[in-house]
Amino acid sequence: MEKIGIVMNGVTGRMGTNQHLERSIAAIRRQGGVQLRDGRRVVPDPVLLGRNPEKLEALARKYDVERWSMSLDACLSDPRNAIYFDAQATPLRAAAVRSALAAGKHVYCEKPLAGGLEEAMELARMATAAGVKHGIVQDKLFLPGIMKLKQVIQSGFLGRILAVRGEFGYWVFEGDLEPAQRPSWNYRKEDGGGIVLDMFPHWQYLLENLFGPVTALSCLATTHIPRRVNEAGEPYAATADDAAYATFQIEDGAIVQMNSSWCTRVHRDELLMLQVDGDQGSAVAGLRECEVQHRATTPRALWNPDIPDPNTYLAEWQKVPANESFDNAFKVQWEMFLRHVLEDAPFPHDFFQAVRGIQVVDAGVRSSLERKWQDVPPLTIHF
Amino acid sequence: MEKIGIVMNGVTGRMGTNQHLERSIAAIRRQGGVQLRDGRRVVPDPVLLGRNPEKLEALARKYDVERWSMSLDACLSDPRNAIYFDAQATPLRAAAVRSALAAGKHVYCEKPLAGGLEEAMELARMATAAGVKHGIVQDKLFLPGIMKLKQVIQSGFLGRILAVRGEFGYWVFEGDLEPAQRPSWNYRKEDGGGIVLDMFPHWQYLLENLFGPVTALSCLATTHIPRRVNEAGEPYAATADDAAYATFQIEDGAIVQMNSSWCTRVHRDELLMLQVDGDQGSAVAGLRECEVQHRATTPRALWNPDIPDPNTYLAEWQKVPANESFDNAFKVQWEMFLRHVLEDAPFPHDFFQAVRGIQVVDAGVRSSLERKWQDVPPLTIHF
Amino acid sequence: MEKIGIVMNGVTGRMGTNQHLERSIAAIRRQGGVQLRDGRRVVPDPVLLGRNPEKLEALARKYDVERWSMSLDACLSDPRNAIYFDAQATPLRAAAVRSALAAGKHVYCEKPLAGGLEEAMELARMATAAGVKHGIVQDKLFLPGIMKLKQVIQSGFLGRILAVRGEFGYWVFEGDLEPAQRPSWNYRKEDGGGIVLDMFPHWQYLLENLFGPVTALSCLATTHIPRRVNEAGEPYAATADDAAYATFQIEDGAIVQMNSSWCTRVHRDELLMLQVDGDQGSAVAGLRECEVQHRATTPRALWNPDIPDPNTYLAEWQKVPANESFDNAFKVQWEMFLRHVLEDAPFPHDFFQAVRGIQVVDAGVRSSLERKWQDVPPLTIHF
Amino acid sequence: MEKIGIVMNGVTGRMGTNQHLERSIAAIRRQGGVQLRDGRRVVPDPVLLGRNPEKLEALARKYDVERWSMSLDACLSDPRNAIYFDAQATPLRAAAVRSALAAGKHVYCEKPLAGGLEEAMELARMATAAGVKHGIVQDKLFLPGIMKLKQVIQSGFLGRILAVRGEFGYWVFEGDLEPAQRPSWNYRKEDGGGIVLDMFPHWQYLLENLFGPVTALSCLATTHIPRRVNEAGEPYAATADDAAYATFQIEDGAIVQMNSSWCTRVHRDELLMLQVDGDQGSAVAGLRECEVQHRATTPRALWNPDIPDPNTYLAEWQKVPANESFDNAFKVQWEMFLRHVLEDAPFPHDFFQAVRGIQVVDAGVRSSLERKWQDVPPLTIHF
Repeated sequence: MEKIGIVMNGVTGRMGTNQHLERSIAAIRRQGGVQLRDGRRVVPDPVLLGRNPEKLEALARKYDVERWSMSLDACLSDPRNAIYFDAQATPLRAAAVRSALAAGKHVYCEKPLAGGLEEAMELARMATAAGVKHGIVQDKLFLPGIMKLKQVIQSGFLGRILAVRGEFGYWVFEGDLEPAQRPSWNYRKEDGGGIVLDMFPHWQYLLENLFGPVTALSCLATTHIPRRVNEAGEPYAATADDAAYATFQIEDGAIVQMNSSWCTRVHRDELLMLQVDGDQGSAVAGLRECEVQHRATTPRALWNPDIPDPNTYLAEWQKVPANESFDNAFKVQWEMFLRHVLEDAPFPHDFFQAVRGIQVVDAGVRSSLERKWQDVPPLTIHF
Repeated sequence: MEKIGIVMNGVTGRMGTNQHLERSIAAIRRQGGVQLRDGRRVVPDPVLLGRNPEKLEALARKYDVERWSMSLDACLSDPRNAIYFDAQATPLRAAAVRSALAAGKHVYCEKPLAGGLEEAMELARMATAAGVKHGIVQDKLFLPGIMKLKQVIQSGFLGRILAVRGEFGYWVFEGDLEPAQRPSWNYRKEDGGGIVLDMFPHWQYLLENLFGPVTALSCLATTHIPRRVNEAGEPYAATADDAAYATFQIEDGAIVQMNSSWCTRVHRDELLMLQVDGDQGSAVAGLRECEVQHRATTPRALWNPDIPDPNTYLAEWQKVPANESFDNAFKVQWEMFLRHVLEDAPFPHDFFQAVRGIQVVDAGVRSSLERKWQDVPPLTIHF
Repeated sequence: MEKIGIVMNGVTGRMGTNQHLERSIAAIRRQGGVQLRDGRRVVPDPVLLGRNPEKLEALARKYDVERWSMSLDACLSDPRNAIYFDAQATPLRAAAVRSALAAGKHVYCEKPLAGGLEEAMELARMATAAGVKHGIVQDKLFLPGIMKLKQVIQSGFLGRILAVRGEFGYWVFEGDLEPAQRPSWNYRKEDGGGIVLDMFPHWQYLLENLFGPVTALSCLATTHIPRRVNEAGEPYAATADDAAYATFQIEDGAIVQMNSSWCTRVHRDELLMLQVDGDQGSAVAGLRECEVQHRATTPRALWNPDIPDPNTYLAEWQKVPANESFDNAFKVQWEMFLRHVLEDAPFPHDFFQAVRGIQVVDAGVRSSLERKWQDVPPLTIHF
Repeated sequence: MEKIGIVMNGVTGRMGTNQHLERSIAAIRRQGGVQLRDGRRVVPDPVLLGRNPEKLEALARKYDVERWSMSLDACLSDPRNAIYFDAQATPLRAAAVRSALAAGKHVYCEKPLAGGLEEAMELARMATAAGVKHGIVQDKLFLPGIMKLKQVIQSGFLGRILAVRGEFGYWVFEGDLEPAQRPSWNYRKEDGGGIVLDMFPHWQYLLENLFGPVTALSCLATTHIPRRVNEAGEPYAATADDAAYATFQIEDGAIVQMNSSWCTRVHRDELLMLQVDGDQGSAVAGLRECEVQHRATTPRALWNPDIPDPNTYLAEWQKVPANESFDNAFKVQWEMFLRHVLEDAPFPHDFFQAVRGIQVVDAGVRSSLERKWQDVPPLTIHF
């Protein structure tokens, strides 16, 4: 059985442990690796890299992993390791990625690739120059509801897409009555917090993959809840944006109205929902489900305040059946990246896509400050 | 039984007949008029004014009205008539209102008061100078769902209001497979069509009455369906906007994201819905119903794509009971205006409010063209 | 108010009275006639023609009709009568239609136009030569379920149509345990009975209007129940076919499997149902309802006899909403024919269509005898 | 405990492993073999025969089977083996069966017995001449729904059977939007694909066992979807028939209309359904359920398009209760064949039945080409 060595940096964090180690790499090992087109099976052979030896050893034991290390250099100089994966805190990422590229490793990263546009661009240029494979995590593309929506779009059901309305968010507790369900640094700008920085990279790749490139955006970011209580029970000033109200224009003319908020109470089926209206039909997708309505089954709505509306609108949509069983979103993308490295299978989620995500964050921040639309031009890479 | 004479101009139209004549004035007559604080009852004594004698006579017969006329001047010079009401097509309104004001009548009007900001302003100044009572129809304030929401806001349930998300719209058929459910002029700019002109006056008074004055807005208006089929089965170019994506800022800091579309398939309970998030609680209101969720009953939402969400969010809201029976929205406002004229009862829906509605339309159109936020300053009236 | 005189021959029969007189002509009179494009309204002025003066007089009184008569010649020579309508028994029709055409009347007929292909052809040639308007009743086209299906087809929902499965029929009681719900002559060939003769004209126009011209057919007609009991309680030999199993080919390649039976117990929602499978979607239509399923919402069916099927197939279809209110099918076609006569509005249901219906009956009978497919070539009319 | 040796050839395929090994032979071993009339219990002692030693060894381990082999000759010359079973691909079957017959083994086979009528006939003659027991898999006879239907027929509930309508099929995905749920060779004539070849053997034995011998048939086979995408994601031309519309005549006069389609969306309760109409009652059976309606409980259906049908037809049928628990269909037939070999119990599913199945396939193909009915005469065997 063939092996491929992977340096996994930052797996002691929540996402690193749960999604990348347990549900992706350990799960791929349990199933006997990935199968290539030529029939070979290749099994990931991770080395867990971090700063806390107790945690690393415990994870290695739990997931039956032979190797762990506290030295990035040692890992990168080990020729068994073909891939460097980074799920560290954002400020630590760029330097480690640079080292990995210098060592000729293929690189796969959590988003955002870097804290700023310039730095992200530079990493993309470096990776290209190094001739290695590079990738960025874009997990929401592989959510069952989004994959069903993608299939509906490809089937032609919607026709020309006119408009999209996206709602994301929920109420993040302030921490006084009951503890917040997100870390307090998310609400401090100085610590890299803010909902624009957190979510706009997701919106960028979701919109581009589903509907086409974003060409312009207007955004109003705000801080609705100015004081919160942290993990230690102490009040702190929330300096980062906790809601962002944005409109995007898509290359082929569609308009996307998207709100993102940690200060909204959920009055919908799922935490993220996209309604897509096309000239032939519409779809409403969440994380897991997707419902559709064709022009041939669109009810005749009439504004008549004198009687209760004779339509029961929510019942007039049809669920898209779950014809395939959907694997974990992170695992699906890990398998794609491994095949990209091992047999050059296509992998559109590269560092240039990562740069596009940060470009959209930048435009969002600028739009909110300058109170006007911002163009999001195609990337031009100068080497 | 005391009577008050009302010139009703434009009652042969759909809204004029159904809402203003049948469900308002005729209904008030059937119930024995309006009761004043001092115990008097005053019955409206309308004269139906128009250009089609057959229609006028038929309406008069059907609703048991003694008087109809084809002459505005005759009506205005008749001292029995204290009030002039106008539900004509917009381009005809300003001139008739000017005559009524000149004749010293109190004036009540359908919206929009005039086609442009300057003209509306002038009518407001004239009405003030004339010392008469003046009012504008703002029926959506009196919808059961909106009145319940108003009550929820006034109760303090929501606390400080952070954000509002409004959705209005439905699919207006293109007219090819099945006839459109709105007249074709709505889709021609040259005939006074367009969704901004039609709906923004409503949003202005709804927002100001529920949440406070609008101070700025950003708007993107568009035409999603460029060709439609008219009442005669012939295709035509749709030149007016059929969807508008807007964000409003409210004086006290709340942000309102509001979409208005005739090209969306309804995936909600009612054709108009407003979600209001406050720091103490949230409310979701439609035409008829209103649901609430307090911070004390807010579920703990967690993003976990690996399992179906354990919350059933829509079931976790509580319906506001219909403790009062709600009368027709137009009738409620008619009764208020009659008391305003007869005993100087408060009536905030005056011509200055009407001007504000047109001001918001203007700002919306400009914002969409210039692609930036527009301030909506307080009105300054120069006499 | 303008009038148009109509000779109604055969209105004392069940269909003549209920559908043509009560629900069509009398209903059109109650609504004030038909409205033409130029604004005129024209009211039908029928003369009830028949052989039983008591019945005629009773009908005239009941439906507020001024004229009835027992003489075809008198009716045809009266210049007030512009239209001749025939709902007599089939063997009587051709002679009366010939007289009406000779008198220069427009002619509208119940189906079948004649008992045989040659005679039907001759009437079509005569009508053409006379330069009058001619029409045949094709009521099933105007059933709500079929009109919804037509709209679904026109919307493109189904894509290329592959196959149609039609089921028509129900159990007609033998007359022994309980009385039959159809007349006994229906089951005697010598009296013009038989399900092929009764239903194939309907299938011809339904298929041609929905899917395109029939080019060939294979049919097996049979008599399942050889002895029945008549209206007088006496047994008789059923000599006509009471079931027909047919397959049709449509010009553009679709295949239609259609069964018609008076000896089947109904295990479906409606007495007539058509399932239409296309490469983009499918529809199932009955008299009143129509349900659809798109390729994007098609469930993944798997043959696995070891477990109960996880799909609940019937729940996975979506009902087409009733966006328009549907009028009586016969009345709709009467109004079309009146407009065809009065203002030359289009009316595709002419005598040549009637001939096509009989052509398909003929081919069905031949196919069943010769046990092979029969071509149904386009009509060639020689004058 | 007595044993009976069985050579199981072709158990590494899907049906061989799941149905014949796991659910039949292994299940019979777990239950302690089959019990004979004289009280003995005999346990199957299989030898797994195939070409892939890893697969054979893995199956043997998993199902606790002692013997596996790669040599047909060795298996056939081993006197412990009394039965030869064949579930290989069709082209390999005839030669192996010939060897088994030459070695004096009893033979049991998956369908079809051979690729052509001549070869199948020859095998039947050989088996007869050899004086051994021979059998063919006819699993659908042992489906719970079909067994309930058989019981209903035997009870006399239906009376004389008039007509049968069978529907089989579902939508097999084209492979573009989502992978097909059947192998691509099914859609290539050159690889033995086609729905007539796949399903008509099943229809033959179902019809003959339930209703009596097929005496003639008319069939129209077609290819609705000409291009599909294969397992490797590549488009290919579908050259085999993917739907067949057939009518069968049964010896005692019943008519069967049967459609088989991989291009239909399922609007029924189960993937296969048979409606059987008799003069005393009707039954509708699927894989698992069977519903009945007696002439005494038949509703009075009336064609009246003016009102919604007052009958709810589907609710007017009664479910046949599952009074016995139904074992796996393949296992039931295996137990029958073992008793046939061990104590000469009756077993009507012999090679002559297998030949009948192929005879019906042949007639179906010919009918579709020649566009006429084909007789299906009784078999005459010449030795």
